[in-house]
Amino acid sequence: MKKLTAVLGSALMFSVSSFASDTDLLNQAKNLFKPLPKVANNPENPVTQVKVKLGKMLYYDTRLSRSNIISCNSCHNLARYGVDNTPTSVGHKWAIGPRNAPTVYNAALHIAQFWDGRAKDVEEQALGPILNPIEMGMPTKERVVKVVKSIPEYVELFKKAFPNDSDPVKFENIGKAIGAFERTLMTPSRFDEFLNGNTNALTKKEKRGLKTFISVGCAGCHNGPAIGGTMFMKFGQVEEYWKETYPYVLKESPAIKVDFGRFGVTKNKADMFVFKVPSLRNIAETYPYFHDGSVWKLEDAVRIMAKTQLGKDLTDQQVEDIVAFLKSLTGKLPEDALKTPVLPPSTDKTPKPEF
Amino acid sequence: MKKLTAVLGSALMFSVSSFASDTDLLNQAKNLFKPLPKVANNPENPVTQVKVKLGKMLYYDTRLSRSNIISCNSCHNLARYGVDNTPTSVGHKWAIGPRNAPTVYNAALHIAQFWDGRAKDVEEQALGPILNPIEMGMPTKERVVKVVKSIPEYVELFKKAFPNDSDPVKFENIGKAIGAFERTLMTPSRFDEFLNGNTNALTKKEKRGLKTFISVGCAGCHNGPAIGGTMFMKFGQVEEYWKETYPYVLKESPAIKVDFGRFGVTKNKADMFVFKVPSLRNIAETYPYFHDGSVWKLEDAVRIMAKTQLGKDLTDQQVEDIVAFLKSLTGKLPEDALKTPVLPPSTDKTPKPEF
Repeated sequence: MKKLTAVLGSALMFSVSSFASDTDLLNQAKNLFKPLPKVANNPENPVTQVKVKLGKMLYYDTRLSRSNIISCNSCHNLARYGVDNTPTSVGHKWAIGPRNAPTVYNAALHIAQFWDGRAKDVEEQALGPILNPIEMGMPTKERVVKVVKSIPEYVELFKKAFPNDSDPVKFENIGKAIGAFERTLMTPSRFDEFLNGNTNALTKKEKRGLKTFISVGCAGCHNGPAIGGTMFMKFGQVEEYWKETYPYVLKESPAIKVDFGRFGVTKNKADMFVFKVPSLRNIAETYPYFHDGSVWKLEDAVRIMAKTQLGKDLTDQQVEDIVAFLKSLTGKLPEDALKTPVLPPSTDKTPKPEF
Repeated sequence: MKKLTAVLGSALMFSVSSFASDTDLLNQAKNLFKPLPKVANNPENPVTQVKVKLGKMLYYDTRLSRSNIISCNSCHNLARYGVDNTPTSVGHKWAIGPRNAPTVYNAALHIAQFWDGRAKDVEEQALGPILNPIEMGMPTKERVVKVVKSIPEYVELFKKAFPNDSDPVKFENIGKAIGAFERTLMTPSRFDEFLNGNTNALTKKEKRGLKTFISVGCAGCHNGPAIGGTMFMKFGQVEEYWKETYPYVLKESPAIKVDFGRFGVTKNKADMFVFKVPSLRNIAETYPYFHDGSVWKLEDAVRIMAKTQLGKDLTDQQVEDIVAFLKSLTGKLPEDALKTPVLPPSTDKTPKPEF
């Protein structure tokens, strides 16, 4: 009987301490992270139903590219967690891009867009690839507008989506429509349930991983609702990143060079090798990793980050636990986004594809 | 009063004669065409729910291509009536194909697949582009199977889709799964309602167009449930097709050459310039037209067909009416097909993309 009481007592103690430590962890996590909002609002571009409908159509429409075969969805495939799972993307005339295509899911929450932050929000970002000669390859804004204006169904939707605009079908509004759609691309996961107070939403291992993620220092940069995307940081705080990543570059990969990152935007020496800290939402699905897509295994990426950014050699157990936690960030993809819209036909006025 | 009776009488007569002529037209049409089935069955490859689910995933999966960026849906875009609306498609390393990509909607009803009929059914067809070096560019069947086998979710689905197969994940079964999915891609339209007895399902103009379509001779080849796809026929019965189509070839188009058609398959001289008669279902949406995608306007295509195949110069009114009828063949796209499936992640064993 004494023995039983002792056993029960220690079980109770363990349970209490586990409860206490779960609550501690939850409180710590709440200070660092936030659950995802339903929509990432932008007062300058209110998210309306008709704007989202239009934006989704444009997102899937290959006619926004010169060849008429590349859409936003080509490289940011919504069925594959918003990426193309290649090191760097293929664009117009099979041009190979210099950086890995980041996911559009939850991207609207980031401090800025692109790896180097050269666009301030998703509205601005959406327009970049359309005109980039090695992406969708449209020669001019005017041509993009001409395409959209040539399709009556689009003209109608632009009027409805931008009712106070005297010239609704214009280039910036294409970005606003796509941006509004992207603001709905949130992917809540079990981690959000945890942050909302349900400490059983994560397994023991995942909680141990979360603890390690915080204690090792990962959350110093990967924080906020997107678990990243809140700041710019040098890749290679402790040692040059390429020493760690280059051994992983595939022989089939596009020729990857040392990338100066944000320096290319600001021309400020302090921004050399500085990149936006990527979101870790859905990270297990959005391989390969880093701005150069050099590393395919999440375990390797975690190890490299600890080494280059924190100067730490993680144990196998730490890596395993962190990866378990990161997998809990794989969220539910919004069903509406995956319902491909039937796109209206071109007309005689629509510019023909050019290869 | 006499006058009124006379007017009423003639209105009644007109209505009776219009009714009689509608019934005649319906009977004529019923002899030539058939409503679409729900599913285009194939006893050798029964359409089951799990096979369709698997086939749909494979249809959308870019990992069936060497680069991991091209899927069946890239050229046969379900959101654009199963085509890419370009003259001829772009494939691996931006190779430009020699023939226009036909729609997958209703294709399972055709006598054979491809413009030259070199595959007997959709199951066989589906495998062609995967291995074609200028399409999806996979080097070998074995590599395709290796990709699929490396993804546990696919292995499970193959087991369920082919329960009596001791080796379910094999190349032919990829074709069978995609084929089963394609057998569900039927797009009934108002014309099917008409064929089912509702003579008011078509407008007067459309009925006049149908009448012209039959009386001019179009239905001699374009018949059956897909309004085409039932036979092979020489393109250029009366005069060489290229005399009519080449003036339409865009300067941006891929270099189009005279195409020997089915002769390439059979090496039989009688098959020179012979092609499968294409389906006219959704034809208004699946521009540009002909095996070379040379002609963008449906009116032009109709005129050229009458000239080259029947030796007839249609009047503007005839063309207008036939086009009105053809537009009534634009059907409802199946909602399920447009719900993009979330695709399972790759694993360490999945071959990496090659550019």
